[in-house]
Amino acid sequence: MQAELVIIGTELLLGEIVDTNAQFLAQRLSECGINLYYKSTVGDNWLRIVETLSRALSRSDIVIISGGLGPTDDDLTRAAVAAVTNRPLVLDEKALSTIEAYFRHRYGEGQMPSNNRKQAYLPQGAHIMPNTRGTAPGFILEHNGRAIAALPGVPVEMEAMFEGSLLPYLQEKYDREVIVTRNLSFTGIGESALEELVKDIIASQSNPTVAPYASQGAVRIRLTARASFEDEAEALIEPVAREIASRTAEYLYSTSGQSLEEVIGECLRSQGRTLAVAESCTGGMVGHRITNIPGSSEYFLRGYIVYSNEAKISDLGVNEDTIKQYGAVSPQTAREMAEGVRRKAGTDFGVAITGIAGPGGGTPEKPVGLVYISLASPGDTIVERHQFTGSREQIKQRSAQAALTLLWKGLR
Amino acid sequence: MQAELVIIGTELLLGEIVDTNAQFLAQRLSECGINLYYKSTVGDNWLRIVETLSRALSRSDIVIISGGLGPTDDDLTRAAVAAVTNRPLVLDEKALSTIEAYFRHRYGEGQMPSNNRKQAYLPQGAHIMPNTRGTAPGFILEHNGRAIAALPGVPVEMEAMFEGSLLPYLQEKYDREVIVTRNLSFTGIGESALEELVKDIIASQSNPTVAPYASQGAVRIRLTARASFEDEAEALIEPVAREIASRTAEYLYSTSGQSLEEVIGECLRSQGRTLAVAESCTGGMVGHRITNIPGSSEYFLRGYIVYSNEAKISDLGVNEDTIKQYGAVSPQTAREMAEGVRRKAGTDFGVAITGIAGPGGGTPEKPVGLVYISLASPGDTIVERHQFTGSREQIKQRSAQAALTLLWKGLR
Repeated sequence: MQAELVIIGTELLLGEIVDTNAQFLAQRLSECGINLYYKSTVGDNWLRIVETLSRALSRSDIVIISGGLGPTDDDLTRAAVAAVTNRPLVLDEKALSTIEAYFRHRYGEGQMPSNNRKQAYLPQGAHIMPNTRGTAPGFILEHNGRAIAALPGVPVEMEAMFEGSLLPYLQEKYDREVIVTRNLSFTGIGESALEELVKDIIASQSNPTVAPYASQGAVRIRLTARASFEDEAEALIEPVAREIASRTAEYLYSTSGQSLEEVIGECLRSQGRTLAVAESCTGGMVGHRITNIPGSSEYFLRGYIVYSNEAKISDLGVNEDTIKQYGAVSPQTAREMAEGVRRKAGTDFGVAITGIAGPGGGTPEKPVGLVYISLASPGDTIVERHQFTGSREQIKQRSAQAALTLLWKGLR
Repeated sequence: MQAELVIIGTELLLGEIVDTNAQFLAQRLSECGINLYYKSTVGDNWLRIVETLSRALSRSDIVIISGGLGPTDDDLTRAAVAAVTNRPLVLDEKALSTIEAYFRHRYGEGQMPSNNRKQAYLPQGAHIMPNTRGTAPGFILEHNGRAIAALPGVPVEMEAMFEGSLLPYLQEKYDREVIVTRNLSFTGIGESALEELVKDIIASQSNPTVAPYASQGAVRIRLTARASFEDEAEALIEPVAREIASRTAEYLYSTSGQSLEEVIGECLRSQGRTLAVAESCTGGMVGHRITNIPGSSEYFLRGYIVYSNEAKISDLGVNEDTIKQYGAVSPQTAREMAEGVRRKAGTDFGVAITGIAGPGGGTPEKPVGLVYISLASPGDTIVERHQFTGSREQIKQRSAQAALTLLWKGLR
């Protein structure tokens, strides 16, 4: 079974964005044991898209397209697939009603721009792949014993459609074997340090494969096993996962792909405890991450973004002299912020972050990237000092991650 | 002048790394006015590399290769270029002495692994491009009026070689045009609705080209002009940009690629005004976005993440009866939150968001995605009702975008 990727979008040939879709698809296909032999990128140009698709269809069993499914005139994927398979474009009523529902629900009756109708015309014989994150439906078209799958270019839409529709199709059609993937998620350790701990396992394992990778702040190890039946694959994964876990326990927060904020939420809910946060340099990012979890209102009661010293004093009761004497970025202020927010909100836990996100505001004694994090618990209060590097956004992200890590450790 | 990229490396087809070389090259070529029409990625496989290179050479003036120049057996670029141009591989003494010097300088006399000699064999007639960052020399080969350039796969080596050797060659060889790109950024309007406003301009323009596109929450129109000189290209863009701006003024927040929060920050700073936010369903995301901007502490004083009703009452002074009578998600509560946070923080502006991010918590009267946004200004207070769709995170993101949009409109 030989797959080929065709990535469509002039912005990629202008170098305006990095093509993360290609990497996602390549990675998932290889994990699923599907060989990817070619990847082509072509702009929003009719002749070049048609030429590229025809060649792909002539040499690969499955051609996976990403991009060009939008409503505008330079979205050519639907028409190009119709052309290379010599089929008419026909209105897919199911697709149309989904798109109409999307606009009705979002903007009210009759608010759908007419050119979004375009997105409901698919090559004759195509099976729609629903888009759970946006308007553009995808589709799968079988043609002369081969298949063409069209996915949207927007990463969140593309990934959801791949996992929800395309992958099940591929597995059923081409792959008698079951693929089981398990993700182990870590925090408080870097990718290479983690790899060192399990180097020998990575080298010795082929089924399951063991692959460490970093993705938005989290470090993960993905185990992928292939077998005739799911329980067989699980049985292959189990001992390897257990061995890895035994070496990495202090960093391992999930064996089921959960996010750190999800795990924290489950701990708080199961313990019947509550949380409040006081953020200075992270500016709301910690609250944002915690509240990404459905039901977080059960345990997350409130947060304070105390950017000014006055806010630290009046909202959290930080002692004015503490700030005068030690500065807003100091272990003393961090402690008073954590204890203050816990007291003020009447929660079991209070988390505080104060630091210098930069690029300005650094001094020799307090350089950009210096961040103090504090956790006030029923028992005691902990303060951690961190020196981060990177851009302002990276320092915010790393500070938020460190704060959630400290909370997670405190909850265990 | 038409260029094509051929990226060589199995690791890219396995999704082990993101292809940043392709983006770098695409970006630089476009900045230099060289048209890039195709980008192909192929693994370290002799037949597929030869097939891909032959096709590229048959349709493009210049074929730029990245990767496959290393010393190992799966580094096939040198031999593949020799094969498709029907030339022998010959030892390039200059290349050999450079490689030897590299190892001597780094590891001492006689420390060069024998297989690094392989890197000094180039297709007959090729001109070497020195590698200032590593061992693998690159080369340029002119063949039947076309050119093949081979660059290493290691990004730092590739970039140095492109800037130091390939770019000067391209500039001298091809009488090139400059490309100037300008991005217009919009908020409060969808991609297709925006396109309808300027459809005729898109259709009638070829230089500059006019292309709408959506990227993380923002909707943009990109104008790209070609001319012999930068000011000429600017002059071509100017009237078209002005015409588009005149039709879309109420949505257009930047003509220089700035983010909405950057523009808001500049308005606040230049007006010497201050801001505080009260977030319920966005959970800190608005504060997070505002504080991504360096220097935001000058105008952003504080934020409240008031997830519980009690927090809305005690932190913002929302009237308990208002929540009892109309609910926490109501225009009345939104208004009191905005006015409350403005009063409490003593700022010029107060922004408030309250809504149902879901997936739970919806009712027939107040479905998931119902969000009220309010802006309290020196003059008055505005409340907006929105009905969003999507996942919890999408609803948070759309609510934050709508809140920043309302603030931006209030600042103009």
